[in-house]
Amino acid sequence: MIAVVKQNVEEEQLQNLIDWLQTQNVAVHISRGENHTVLGLVGDTSHIDMELLENLDIVERVTRISEPFKNANRKFHPRDTVVDVSGVKIGGGNFAIIAGPCSVESREQIVEVARRVKASGASLLRGGAFKPRTSPYDFQGLKAEGLELLKIAKEETGMPIVTEIMSASHLPLFEDVDLIQVGARNMQNFELLKELGKIKKPILLKRGLASTMKEWLMSAEYIMAGGNEQIILCERGIRTFETYTRNTLDLSAVPMLKELSHLPVIVDPSHAGGLSRLVKPMSMAAVAAGTDGLMIEVHNDPSRALCDGAQSLTPEQFDDVAKAVSRVQEALNA
Amino acid sequence: MIAVVKQNVEEEQLQNLIDWLQTQNVAVHISRGENHTVLGLVGDTSHIDMELLENLDIVERVTRISEPFKNANRKFHPRDTVVDVSGVKIGGGNFAIIAGPCSVESREQIVEVARRVKASGASLLRGGAFKPRTSPYDFQGLKAEGLELLKIAKEETGMPIVTEIMSASHLPLFEDVDLIQVGARNMQNFELLKELGKIKKPILLKRGLASTMKEWLMSAEYIMAGGNEQIILCERGIRTFETYTRNTLDLSAVPMLKELSHLPVIVDPSHAGGLSRLVKPMSMAAVAAGTDGLMIEVHNDPSRALCDGAQSLTPEQFDDVAKAVSRVQEALNA
Amino acid sequence: MIAVVKQNVEEEQLQNLIDWLQTQNVAVHISRGENHTVLGLVGDTSHIDMELLENLDIVERVTRISEPFKNANRKFHPRDTVVDVSGVKIGGGNFAIIAGPCSVESREQIVEVARRVKASGASLLRGGAFKPRTSPYDFQGLKAEGLELLKIAKEETGMPIVTEIMSASHLPLFEDVDLIQVGARNMQNFELLKELGKIKKPILLKRGLASTMKEWLMSAEYIMAGGNEQIILCERGIRTFETYTRNTLDLSAVPMLKELSHLPVIVDPSHAGGLSRLVKPMSMAAVAAGTDGLMIEVHNDPSRALCDGAQSLTPEQFDDVAKAVSRVQEALNA
Amino acid sequence: MIAVVKQNVEEEQLQNLIDWLQTQNVAVHISRGENHTVLGLVGDTSHIDMELLENLDIVERVTRISEPFKNANRKFHPRDTVVDVSGVKIGGGNFAIIAGPCSVESREQIVEVARRVKASGASLLRGGAFKPRTSPYDFQGLKAEGLELLKIAKEETGMPIVTEIMSASHLPLFEDVDLIQVGARNMQNFELLKELGKIKKPILLKRGLASTMKEWLMSAEYIMAGGNEQIILCERGIRTFETYTRNTLDLSAVPMLKELSHLPVIVDPSHAGGLSRLVKPMSMAAVAAGTDGLMIEVHNDPSRALCDGAQSLTPEQFDDVAKAVSRVQEALNA
Repeated sequence: MIAVVKQNVEEEQLQNLIDWLQTQNVAVHISRGENHTVLGLVGDTSHIDMELLENLDIVERVTRISEPFKNANRKFHPRDTVVDVSGVKIGGGNFAIIAGPCSVESREQIVEVARRVKASGASLLRGGAFKPRTSPYDFQGLKAEGLELLKIAKEETGMPIVTEIMSASHLPLFEDVDLIQVGARNMQNFELLKELGKIKKPILLKRGLASTMKEWLMSAEYIMAGGNEQIILCERGIRTFETYTRNTLDLSAVPMLKELSHLPVIVDPSHAGGLSRLVKPMSMAAVAAGTDGLMIEVHNDPSRALCDGAQSLTPEQFDDVAKAVSRVQEALNA
Repeated sequence: MIAVVKQNVEEEQLQNLIDWLQTQNVAVHISRGENHTVLGLVGDTSHIDMELLENLDIVERVTRISEPFKNANRKFHPRDTVVDVSGVKIGGGNFAIIAGPCSVESREQIVEVARRVKASGASLLRGGAFKPRTSPYDFQGLKAEGLELLKIAKEETGMPIVTEIMSASHLPLFEDVDLIQVGARNMQNFELLKELGKIKKPILLKRGLASTMKEWLMSAEYIMAGGNEQIILCERGIRTFETYTRNTLDLSAVPMLKELSHLPVIVDPSHAGGLSRLVKPMSMAAVAAGTDGLMIEVHNDPSRALCDGAQSLTPEQFDDVAKAVSRVQEALNA
Repeated sequence: MIAVVKQNVEEEQLQNLIDWLQTQNVAVHISRGENHTVLGLVGDTSHIDMELLENLDIVERVTRISEPFKNANRKFHPRDTVVDVSGVKIGGGNFAIIAGPCSVESREQIVEVARRVKASGASLLRGGAFKPRTSPYDFQGLKAEGLELLKIAKEETGMPIVTEIMSASHLPLFEDVDLIQVGARNMQNFELLKELGKIKKPILLKRGLASTMKEWLMSAEYIMAGGNEQIILCERGIRTFETYTRNTLDLSAVPMLKELSHLPVIVDPSHAGGLSRLVKPMSMAAVAAGTDGLMIEVHNDPSRALCDGAQSLTPEQFDDVAKAVSRVQEALNA
Repeated sequence: MIAVVKQNVEEEQLQNLIDWLQTQNVAVHISRGENHTVLGLVGDTSHIDMELLENLDIVERVTRISEPFKNANRKFHPRDTVVDVSGVKIGGGNFAIIAGPCSVESREQIVEVARRVKASGASLLRGGAFKPRTSPYDFQGLKAEGLELLKIAKEETGMPIVTEIMSASHLPLFEDVDLIQVGARNMQNFELLKELGKIKKPILLKRGLASTMKEWLMSAEYIMAGGNEQIILCERGIRTFETYTRNTLDLSAVPMLKELSHLPVIVDPSHAGGLSRLVKPMSMAAVAAGTDGLMIEVHNDPSRALCDGAQSLTPEQFDDVAKAVSRVQEALNA
């Protein structure tokens, strides 16, 4: 961490600052220039509150050199984390596809979709039971009943299940869920993240609509600081000024995050664009960019889906995507 | 609501769609063009799921003419809502300043700041007890103890108190809080909003970092749909590409929201810029733009504040801002 | 185009509007609802000024159904445009790599880089002679001398050359340039676009830093309206709030543009991220997303490049990328 | 400027870098830490190419402490610049309103609008002759004829005139224009900026749609580096994700720019929101924020304006805004 001290600061004030910094267990290197004095802080600075430092009268600006995330940082954990979701591995060379409908609607629907996507190569079943919707008047999911139907589909197909949690108070209902998803709108619901840090289940952490990669990794850090290190990051598009696509899928986040962190990174091409016809090309692109997995919406009858039908694939279309993805993977491994 | 039907749709499919729409209690007007058929849906369309309609194979695009919010909509409630916070009125011509420290730190601190800001004209006391911080390693607030200290300051000064809630599970602790704040990161924490719809306390709803005004009003709608109509909207800056200021204060949101909605709108100039020297000009600008109130961070010793000191005013600076604001108000009323 | 007329408009005003619209050679279909009257305008509406219509007192809002671009629109030109750059074809199944240094620096440099990238499979040579730099104090390119050096490299290797134009007044110097590039900052320099519409050379039109796809296609339309239909679109990253990467590469623009338009679309992975280590994964991703070509910065000694060295590949790295790209293409064609 | 050197760099490489920096006439202070070595560069670093430094293999990151703009920097020119537009002063306590139609349409129109806005207190007349339009099919302005009509209005009313230039090749036509406007889309048309640096006329430099304040000041620097220091900056709204307003007016840019630079800053509330009913509140807010002037669109018949009518005021509305603005100014000076 580097702190630039203002011009014309009195020696005594400067010395006070240096003394205080040394009590924080960081070493301080001083570089005096004509216009600025620069303090280089060396050691573990992750516990130093950058804003606290920056608001001192005598400090002009503070820059971190080390990243503020620690448990999620590849520098301290060079090897890839492999997350094990009830036997399905993701990360460290293990690739998996999560597929299923936006919302669980009925036993027939979820079981049929599960069978179809499994046959095409998906290894995890997704399905929304609690649905975050912008409008209170839109369909909010089947809730507890939806979780029951997911469990039935799991029993019938053997696929581990993935579904979104919207409040820590619902946690008791999620006991049989294999991978708990935190949605984009809750990425900085810190109370929820803290609770998820206390459990022993893998977490799928979606990127916030307008969150930087640093904030996203800091949210992973919240969960990891609590003791739960089984986290999968999921890029799902960010908010920009473009209007032809619902969000802008940020595929450069895949190689960038794999450099910054050891956590697995997957991509959701369905929510990003909001258009089913973009799912195939963006799935292939995500694989070519090095993603550890895909999360794709599939519905047996997209035109009658209770939500997000516009972005869902039919099982036939999903089968085509899965085959195309395999071809790209083979090319990468060749 | 207008639905544009694709070219070359068969008459039977089109008739099926029209029949279905009519079962939703909306009247359908048909306009046939050479390239497109346009359906105009008339009546209460707020309960129609726009995405559901849009994902039908035969539909090309759907546009809302009416806004999707209803309780928050000025069209249906032409008169300004006046929110009464334990005797302090906001909205409908009533202006109020909320002031106080980012975080409650000690009894001495919060009582002193309360006395000082009250003397300068603030009518509500703010102070963070539960603090949302990007990093799990930063100071998270005094929590329940902070709420106790706020209550002491309220008793000693008679000022109603405002503080942020981060989880519905903390609600029992907020019984003596006069105005409950929902922070930017929780603006779409729908489970929290639903719980706040069930209580009888006024809510201060901050705009999300990257939320449109429509999404913001939909979040107000979540609370109002539950029966709690005492909502104050608070603009606090949005995320843009600019880096000199922390966020970009969107003051055009003030007149725009007052046109769209009957709810009071206040402005937080402290968080928007992140710099104390921007607070005075932006406070004056907010008042000139028509805001119903201001929310300003004041600390007795900003250089030692445990968080956000860089944006806090001293009590003397706050007094200067309050006087400048009065002069602008007098000019407006002249 | 749909125009929604306000409530309570007098019949005479409405009739005046309809009469005026009919003089514009569009047919008008009227749909009267309880709260709104909707006019559907049918015919060639591309010449109707949307803002002009929208500012009429009696009009509430106007929505285009047809896109405002015409020459660039796939609906009117279903077949892919194939651009021929002095014998190198791009589009309609023809893939090409453009490679070379950010800036032309010397005869030795540009000739060596040309030889190396040609050997690895590049078919067009890029090199900046006129350089747009944010600061007037940064290196601005060798200008006319740089163009001469490019021509020498072309003679020695037979590769057609690509370079950026910054002012229509420089056009006489560009006679031997095979493909003229319009940079991101000039995408809406309409006077330049008009001049490029009058010449007979293919144009490489980069996307503006914060331009929507619609604005980008409208800029292509400026050139095409002048008679020059040989345009290649180049996605190069857009401005977002993310800071780890310089820009956010919008790969969904590739399939989206190919649906909207018949023009070829290529991708520049070097400028988007601003980091050489992102070039390989993003090149592969772009190919998997369906791009018609790549534009990659290669320098014989990136650490001494006079600009943008941080994003340049060495010839060895470029060779590796070109091979990886081939493998992805084979997988796509399998 | 601070350069952070990578871990494990050999002493010889480091010494080479330091030697090279010293040849650039900057002093180098070295601070060695356990994980990083930090070089503090002291002296005039504005001519050092930051990207060039950053791309060196041994450098991890580079941060500027001093701003890269020099002529525009308040640190080196503490006193406010006052721009004199043919007798009308702007900046340094001098406030002026520029008003007039989006486009010059006819002699009657421009003369009438000029008379009306002058009577209400405007001191400069604006009117577009060359119009940048997103679509090549929209009205592009009366061009040279428009300039002639502006001159007639100037003769008849004595008001200096302001109009936009779109290409340096049009400069000969602008001899009688008093203040030359560079539009948002040309803010980084560096060839145009260089030409404007050579003339002796004041320049009104609008902020680019997605330009940071730093980029904007660097564009001012381009003009100033050529010798023309008579520049007025004009905030006109930036591109964000919000859709209710056309752009987001960034009023915090006013106090921020006045801190960073000595140049006058004015605000255009008409283009920012794109809605005439936002012009009054945002004009008052801009004045309260400390703007040196306003630029407002006024049309004698907005509903028939050939462009941007939706954001134009009638002369009566403008008179009301001018009076409200005066009241705010009096309050500020009280």
